[in-house]
Amino acid sequence: MCRAMGLAGLLLGLVVVPAVLVSTNLRQGAARTGAEPEPSDWEVAADAGPEDSLWPLPQWVRTYPRQLQLAPSRFQLVHGAGSSAGPGCGLLQDAFRRYYEYMFGRSRWRTWGRWPLAARAEPELFQLQVVIEAGDSGCDRHPQLGSNEAYHLSVTQPVAVLKAPEVWGALRGLETFSQLVHEDDYGSFLVNESEINDFPRFPHRGVLLDTSRHYLPLKSILTNLDAMAFNKFNVLHWHIVDDQSFPYQSIYFPELSDKGAYSSNLIYTPADVRVVIEYARLRGIRVIPEFDTPGHTQSWGKGQKDLLTPCYSGGQPTGSFGPVNPVWNTTYDFMTKFFKEISNVFPDEFIHLGGDEVDFSCWKSNPEVKEFMKKRGFGIDYAKLESYYVQNILDIVSSYNKGQMVWQEVFDHKAQLKPDTIVQVWMANNYAHELSSVTGAGLTAVLSAPWYLDYISYGQDWKKYYSVEPLKFSGSEKQKKLVIGGEACLWGEFVDATNLTPRLWPRASAVGERLWSSSNVTNLQDAYRRLRHHRCRMLRRGIAAEPVFVGYCAHEAR
Amino acid sequence: MCRAMGLAGLLLGLVVVPAVLVSTNLRQGAARTGAEPEPSDWEVAADAGPEDSLWPLPQWVRTYPRQLQLAPSRFQLVHGAGSSAGPGCGLLQDAFRRYYEYMFGRSRWRTWGRWPLAARAEPELFQLQVVIEAGDSGCDRHPQLGSNEAYHLSVTQPVAVLKAPEVWGALRGLETFSQLVHEDDYGSFLVNESEINDFPRFPHRGVLLDTSRHYLPLKSILTNLDAMAFNKFNVLHWHIVDDQSFPYQSIYFPELSDKGAYSSNLIYTPADVRVVIEYARLRGIRVIPEFDTPGHTQSWGKGQKDLLTPCYSGGQPTGSFGPVNPVWNTTYDFMTKFFKEISNVFPDEFIHLGGDEVDFSCWKSNPEVKEFMKKRGFGIDYAKLESYYVQNILDIVSSYNKGQMVWQEVFDHKAQLKPDTIVQVWMANNYAHELSSVTGAGLTAVLSAPWYLDYISYGQDWKKYYSVEPLKFSGSEKQKKLVIGGEACLWGEFVDATNLTPRLWPRASAVGERLWSSSNVTNLQDAYRRLRHHRCRMLRRGIAAEPVFVGYCAHEAR
Repeated sequence: MCRAMGLAGLLLGLVVVPAVLVSTNLRQGAARTGAEPEPSDWEVAADAGPEDSLWPLPQWVRTYPRQLQLAPSRFQLVHGAGSSAGPGCGLLQDAFRRYYEYMFGRSRWRTWGRWPLAARAEPELFQLQVVIEAGDSGCDRHPQLGSNEAYHLSVTQPVAVLKAPEVWGALRGLETFSQLVHEDDYGSFLVNESEINDFPRFPHRGVLLDTSRHYLPLKSILTNLDAMAFNKFNVLHWHIVDDQSFPYQSIYFPELSDKGAYSSNLIYTPADVRVVIEYARLRGIRVIPEFDTPGHTQSWGKGQKDLLTPCYSGGQPTGSFGPVNPVWNTTYDFMTKFFKEISNVFPDEFIHLGGDEVDFSCWKSNPEVKEFMKKRGFGIDYAKLESYYVQNILDIVSSYNKGQMVWQEVFDHKAQLKPDTIVQVWMANNYAHELSSVTGAGLTAVLSAPWYLDYISYGQDWKKYYSVEPLKFSGSEKQKKLVIGGEACLWGEFVDATNLTPRLWPRASAVGERLWSSSNVTNLQDAYRRLRHHRCRMLRRGIAAEPVFVGYCAHEAR
Repeated sequence: MCRAMGLAGLLLGLVVVPAVLVSTNLRQGAARTGAEPEPSDWEVAADAGPEDSLWPLPQWVRTYPRQLQLAPSRFQLVHGAGSSAGPGCGLLQDAFRRYYEYMFGRSRWRTWGRWPLAARAEPELFQLQVVIEAGDSGCDRHPQLGSNEAYHLSVTQPVAVLKAPEVWGALRGLETFSQLVHEDDYGSFLVNESEINDFPRFPHRGVLLDTSRHYLPLKSILTNLDAMAFNKFNVLHWHIVDDQSFPYQSIYFPELSDKGAYSSNLIYTPADVRVVIEYARLRGIRVIPEFDTPGHTQSWGKGQKDLLTPCYSGGQPTGSFGPVNPVWNTTYDFMTKFFKEISNVFPDEFIHLGGDEVDFSCWKSNPEVKEFMKKRGFGIDYAKLESYYVQNILDIVSSYNKGQMVWQEVFDHKAQLKPDTIVQVWMANNYAHELSSVTGAGLTAVLSAPWYLDYISYGQDWKKYYSVEPLKFSGSEKQKKLVIGGEACLWGEFVDATNLTPRLWPRASAVGERLWSSSNVTNLQDAYRRLRHHRCRMLRRGIAAEPVFVGYCAHEAR
């Protein structure tokens, strides 16, 4: 209504003052009644309105009725007074450019952005001032588990202010600010006066990509990092190698990818890896590489002889190989050197060491392994052998001052884990119990079990992911604190560049909000509305996120 | 091995004669043992080899060991002697250009295609001569249900000959020929000498696209038509409008899309529709439009007042509307004019009139409808009212000399159908019984029930689609003949341009082979191998078909 008046005023050359609404909208955990979407939802473009556009929902939002107008030709993202970051902060400079483009697009406004704003009713917002409060801006650092992602955003005329202790919070706040700005039917960019206080519920919010079952081109990974930033994810769990292929090009052991990659062009060179890490860093995203052993290693065996266990049948080697050979010293020599490289190449303080789904049958067939079992007094408990192996790998990696993530079997099989080890819970069967056990043992847990997004099904399965409550397990407050987050996993058996993006987004967005927003943000109807807007916004920003349900976006995919 | 010798010969400047294999490979319905794919399947690019590349499998194939070489700079697709088609046949000219590009790519060979073939062992194939045997080439016609799609392909040195009674068979044969040509590791284009006799098992092989639940850009529809041609589909069932939106821009009733489309840019103009029809025609694909009534018509009501039934509650209109109002004459006046337009715009001899899922509750609430029921002696049997309506529509459309397709409810509710009506069987529950009933009544049937591809699930669900036998129902030989084919349906509730292609392909390919190939082509392992090749080929040709399983293609998606 105000918009129509605005146009009329513009046409008549008059200044029209819009009606001032007296109420404000405070939202701290949505509390609308839940219900299925109304059929009339089809009739409105999913990104038509300015409201309900925030995803994930901030911890504390107050919006005021007064709208401010932004002129793309004048609006600036700038470093605020007192900020420890300045024009030398490449991370923020890059973010300013990025968010300017997300808000105003690349070219359209240029032709008409200089339209006289004075003819409109709304006061103008001239700047977003970003203030990093910590003494050291940390612009050149990498994000880490303990990074502070909190921010405070205040949007009032004539300038908006975004304050954050660290640059990581500033990145989150820029995303939120860009979500508040909307374009009306007449092409004006508007933002409601508002105040937001925000911080993540969990510090570890990850997406797992699998580049072994199918190779993912660098571009797909980078696009996914963009989408992750739009959803405030902060960990790329890069399941980089597995049985099927070894696309990681090692500096010390180039044969691994020479022989283990699907093809010589389907690899990640050291330069590619650096690009991924830096692209992620600029978006406040950690890259945790996973080099899963001793199982899931068939592709390793092609380029590294005498690494895998020869399988036997009838007293003879069959020519097949099983998991990494845990009994030879050469195995540990190799792993020592290999993980030294990995520790250097990947700056994150954590490395994921896998340890899942170890098939014991080959070990059981191998005479040398059996002899070793006897010598060590493991009896016929091959889980003990597995733990022996894993223990060695953990020690190697610890010696490089890296923390470790492992899949839950490593815990289940009773490896002695250092207290800061992160156990990733993935088995769907009674994961609450597993969370109890892991945290009961004083270990840190990351939850993935309910979020295996490669398992597709018909309809709005985002609701299922959304409705998970990670802390719904029996345990003390102290135990609950040991659950540091979760990961949406998109295993690659049926996923490559052709379907990665629409399969992951916006389904992973449901996980993103669960891990960021307050635990009481659970209303499905409210989430549905916001998710539709958010999906359209992702589309506009170049992410081919699939539709939530029937309808359309003002900017459709082409 | 021959390839390696070829290279050695090339390097030494010698002519090397490859070993001649003495056996030939005759395949008439594959008969290998069925089993899960071997793990070693990952290790080979899914499009690495020349064998197992045909999809759908022709009715009769004989391949010989001798390979012929094609020089892109010399190879020609030409009209053969005695063909009724010549350079004036735009349809074949376009197909020649298209298949030349599919075989040789757009640019790569130009830089090195003139490499001296004499240095290689293989004799050269210079031409594919295409001969249309019918007196009238039919180049400017539209394909129809009775079109002949048979062809005979003979590949021997120095020229290959493709003979077909009609151009439609030539199109299918060109696809097959292009599938035989493969590029070896050294960039040479090779084809084995071979002979193929082929024809479709069923004449109606369709894909349903839904442009109402989500708008599909023209480009998506055209890309899908390309993919359909690669799979020898010949019917695009265009479910163009439905409750959610009315994107068809009518010439007589432009308000229908002005008010019923999601947005004024999300429509199909008359020019768009012509483009779709012609693009499809050039690929031997019929376009059957569906204008579903009396249900599924909410969007119609926006642009056409007094068309839908006003719903009542407590003796008062509620403001909501139900199905098309079957009691007013104005309804039939409108439909007479509307379907006159549709009959003119769409050249196919069939129009799909829908008739599914009519909700009677609004009709039951409406006093005028109840009065009409009484007058007509329908009692409280609203299926009779539905049939009354449908009957009228069928009569209208018949008067324009169009055949009719309808969803199975129209038959189930005992409308009096003309003998040439095609009943589309879609209800998954006991569809074999429905096929028995429909054909038992002497009506023609098209099967869709087991092929609702919008219902996604984890894993290789193509096997489920592939394993359907359409004629497995109790009925006479005469009844079986009345099943003219089937359709893979991709309803649009959760599909738009972001995910259409990878969701449909190669899953629909399974349906494509089932409808084209001999009924004894059922071996899953053989199909798996060929489907992987075929999927890689689609990728190379610009179709973002999703992976069948782990692995890679020589030309990966980027």
